[in-house]
Amino acid sequence: MHIRVTVWGEYVHEKKHKAVSDLYPKGMHSCIADALNQDPDIRASCATLDQPEHGLTEEVLRNTDVLTWWGHAAHSEVEDRIVERVHARVLEGMGLIVFHSGHNAKIFKKLMGHNCKLVWREAGEKERLWVCNPGHAIAQGLPTYFEIEHEEMYGEPFGIPNPDEVVFISWFAGGEAFRSGVTYRRGAGKLFYFRPGHETYPTFHQKEVQLVIKNAVKWAKPEGHFTWSSPNRGIDQSLEPLTVHGSSVH
Amino acid sequence: MHIRVTVWGEYVHEKKHKAVSDLYPKGMHSCIADALNQDPDIRASCATLDQPEHGLTEEVLRNTDVLTWWGHAAHSEVEDRIVERVHARVLEGMGLIVFHSGHNAKIFKKLMGHNCKLVWREAGEKERLWVCNPGHAIAQGLPTYFEIEHEEMYGEPFGIPNPDEVVFISWFAGGEAFRSGVTYRRGAGKLFYFRPGHETYPTFHQKEVQLVIKNAVKWAKPEGHFTWSSPNRGIDQSLEPLTVHGSSVH
Amino acid sequence: MHIRVTVWGEYVHEKKHKAVSDLYPKGMHSCIADALNQDPDIRASCATLDQPEHGLTEEVLRNTDVLTWWGHAAHSEVEDRIVERVHARVLEGMGLIVFHSGHNAKIFKKLMGHNCKLVWREAGEKERLWVCNPGHAIAQGLPTYFEIEHEEMYGEPFGIPNPDEVVFISWFAGGEAFRSGVTYRRGAGKLFYFRPGHETYPTFHQKEVQLVIKNAVKWAKPEGHFTWSSPNRGIDQSLEPLTVHGSSVH
Amino acid sequence: MHIRVTVWGEYVHEKKHKAVSDLYPKGMHSCIADALNQDPDIRASCATLDQPEHGLTEEVLRNTDVLTWWGHAAHSEVEDRIVERVHARVLEGMGLIVFHSGHNAKIFKKLMGHNCKLVWREAGEKERLWVCNPGHAIAQGLPTYFEIEHEEMYGEPFGIPNPDEVVFISWFAGGEAFRSGVTYRRGAGKLFYFRPGHETYPTFHQKEVQLVIKNAVKWAKPEGHFTWSSPNRGIDQSLEPLTVHGSSVH
Repeated sequence: MHIRVTVWGEYVHEKKHKAVSDLYPKGMHSCIADALNQDPDIRASCATLDQPEHGLTEEVLRNTDVLTWWGHAAHSEVEDRIVERVHARVLEGMGLIVFHSGHNAKIFKKLMGHNCKLVWREAGEKERLWVCNPGHAIAQGLPTYFEIEHEEMYGEPFGIPNPDEVVFISWFAGGEAFRSGVTYRRGAGKLFYFRPGHETYPTFHQKEVQLVIKNAVKWAKPEGHFTWSSPNRGIDQSLEPLTVHGSSVH
Repeated sequence: MHIRVTVWGEYVHEKKHKAVSDLYPKGMHSCIADALNQDPDIRASCATLDQPEHGLTEEVLRNTDVLTWWGHAAHSEVEDRIVERVHARVLEGMGLIVFHSGHNAKIFKKLMGHNCKLVWREAGEKERLWVCNPGHAIAQGLPTYFEIEHEEMYGEPFGIPNPDEVVFISWFAGGEAFRSGVTYRRGAGKLFYFRPGHETYPTFHQKEVQLVIKNAVKWAKPEGHFTWSSPNRGIDQSLEPLTVHGSSVH
Repeated sequence: MHIRVTVWGEYVHEKKHKAVSDLYPKGMHSCIADALNQDPDIRASCATLDQPEHGLTEEVLRNTDVLTWWGHAAHSEVEDRIVERVHARVLEGMGLIVFHSGHNAKIFKKLMGHNCKLVWREAGEKERLWVCNPGHAIAQGLPTYFEIEHEEMYGEPFGIPNPDEVVFISWFAGGEAFRSGVTYRRGAGKLFYFRPGHETYPTFHQKEVQLVIKNAVKWAKPEGHFTWSSPNRGIDQSLEPLTVHGSSVH
Repeated sequence: MHIRVTVWGEYVHEKKHKAVSDLYPKGMHSCIADALNQDPDIRASCATLDQPEHGLTEEVLRNTDVLTWWGHAAHSEVEDRIVERVHARVLEGMGLIVFHSGHNAKIFKKLMGHNCKLVWREAGEKERLWVCNPGHAIAQGLPTYFEIEHEEMYGEPFGIPNPDEVVFISWFAGGEAFRSGVTYRRGAGKLFYFRPGHETYPTFHQKEVQLVIKNAVKWAKPEGHFTWSSPNRGIDQSLEPLTVHGSSVH
């Protein structure tokens, strides 16, 4: 049984900026999917903003174990009904991995219940990611730290709920530190936010980054499935004998 | 310095159902505010759905330390822009206490990032609330447990993120158990969800319930204030010397 | 690759009380191990208090992926050096599942950093366990709730750190509610405390209980391994150029 | 009502190393207590290792709202019975603030249930502390970040349970990042670990550090008091009618 991954890419800057298309000629999503498909346990496909329903139809999502999300320039163009659909699927059990500027994606803010704001600087500075818990599934095979030679800086305060787990924190050459790998559970679904991934740098070509993503996919695959509802368990179905008191507004 | 509380009431069922207006002739919000105003450290006012901007103008919220929320019949009538405003104020530091069917309020679901679904039964059965941590601020002055003679039942699964703290869990005569008092921090703001409070029962007249609400108000009062933003910390402002690498999409 | 489970049993009451030996003639540990060994992915062995080193030698623990723990009458007879050894192995990645009166075991209190106290009553009353998150790995295959016809009651307050996740809460016929299935991560290791399992009732023969234990074993299996240490990263190994300031006490 | 603080100091290196006594002629504890006593809401006293019962008698602890802890050279000389006493008082409601090398103190490891190991380097390098949640009580009055010109470095992985809240993370000139301000609740007590405070640097003389400690004292003051026990709630005291089933081992 493969883990079925859908790699979602906004695919806007790759078509507009030569600096980006030089690095990711088939789009960043293709680079990520290609890396994942080198793992025999994973089968990754792509979906992009410009497709009907942004490539995230009911059927695609029903057959997705883990969705990864990269977006930056066009968050507002993602239709609300698709965001609702993805949100419901995460609560039902689909894993979600959000990269970098996806902190500002509708789906991430909706799941966090937060504004997800942060400080930033685009200087191509060095980022060094430290592993906070080397026993965590997402850190397997990594050294104590790894470096990304050129990245955009993200700084605290990062507007997120306190994470279930902080897996990585980053050191930036310009002087900042950041919680750069954090996990959450939402309903039946597991979430991982991973900070790196700016489009003007070759981050997604880097082996350590690809390893983190593979690990995260395996960690985030569904533990189970649950369709949430708000059923009335009527008086006739009560598990212990009851006498009704008071009136009803229903 | 008083804690300035705004008690928000939907105020719909009180005008439609005699069973409700008999219990709460001036509305449930008035009952809650009256109870709070017996505490010399608290100054509580009311706001209702039918007022302009639902009584939650920028000025009202700016002068609110803790907002309490009761709604049931008309969640969908709460305007999205007001929900956004309340959400932003919570992240800035305002405390929020949500009662009972407020689990389904737009503001609660937005802050939770979840569907907040649950199982329910309206039979006026006994609810017994157990204190999980008697040292918690919200449990001060309470006995080991207290009973509400007649309440609506809420059952698990309750569609919420795992709470920061579970302060109360409930036992129901009909056979269910429920996490009935849970806390969260979101940004600078503190949240408390309190399960009891069905409109056809005199719950908000009960001393133990009023004590929980007073305690929760004191616990949720702002620790600080922070206006979130996403500033660019430019290269010229970097704290350590930097050489710029790569191109920019900004 | 099987998950290698060591089922630890205190094995005292089974030899002293006919009521217990009638239910568990080969000991409670054998009942648990037999149930686990019906799963083709699991290979379970037993260890007991009366063995040398309580059956938990360095070699046994090195070859244990998940340890389960049941004790009641003889917590104080467990040697501290063995507790230290198990503790270190959990932090290195070994899963740990603690049952019922194991809440009072040295290893559980040590990992919790808490007193783990609770209220109790031995009346053979009905316990009904509710699933708080049906999407959780430990709840897979279970119905919304399941009942244990006769169990000892445990009541709140339960002296534990707020759990990472509350998977089950219990309703008791006598009127109490309890957080009866809770998870924690400690270092590289995952922990699950499961409330049921009193020795005078056939709890471990029950299908739903056995399913919970199997699920918990699969959930708790090591995600990775990490040997903790406190290394000095000397000035000559620093990742960025440094000038030494001040004197040293080392 | 003042907040009654006991500032505990190991007071060993101050007597052995001139570099330390030059900075803290009356001991580090006196420096901390003097700073706290400038706040009209706080009344701080000192206790040291060399006093009978390390200055932490039953009476002293009974009259302590918040205990602060600094130790480094002599953790093993702290008597276990005093550690037990402090531990019990924290669970009962006393706040605890642990500084720097106190990560290795018996009381901190006991409360964490963890080894609390970390990486270190004594080079007097620059530490820059970033505020992760500017709305948190402990961050009030602080700028976005503050710098300590010379500090010992602590690096990840830090062997602690995932914190309830990460208030600060540190950037070090030598290239590391660290979770340097973390909170926990244990029973009725609140804990704050604050990383800085090496004895060969004037850290505790710095205004920002003193402000953090004052804020932490106010945050950690008891919300309530609870004496934990494991009472039997007998069948005759059950809240709902019960018929006894099965035999008893008690």
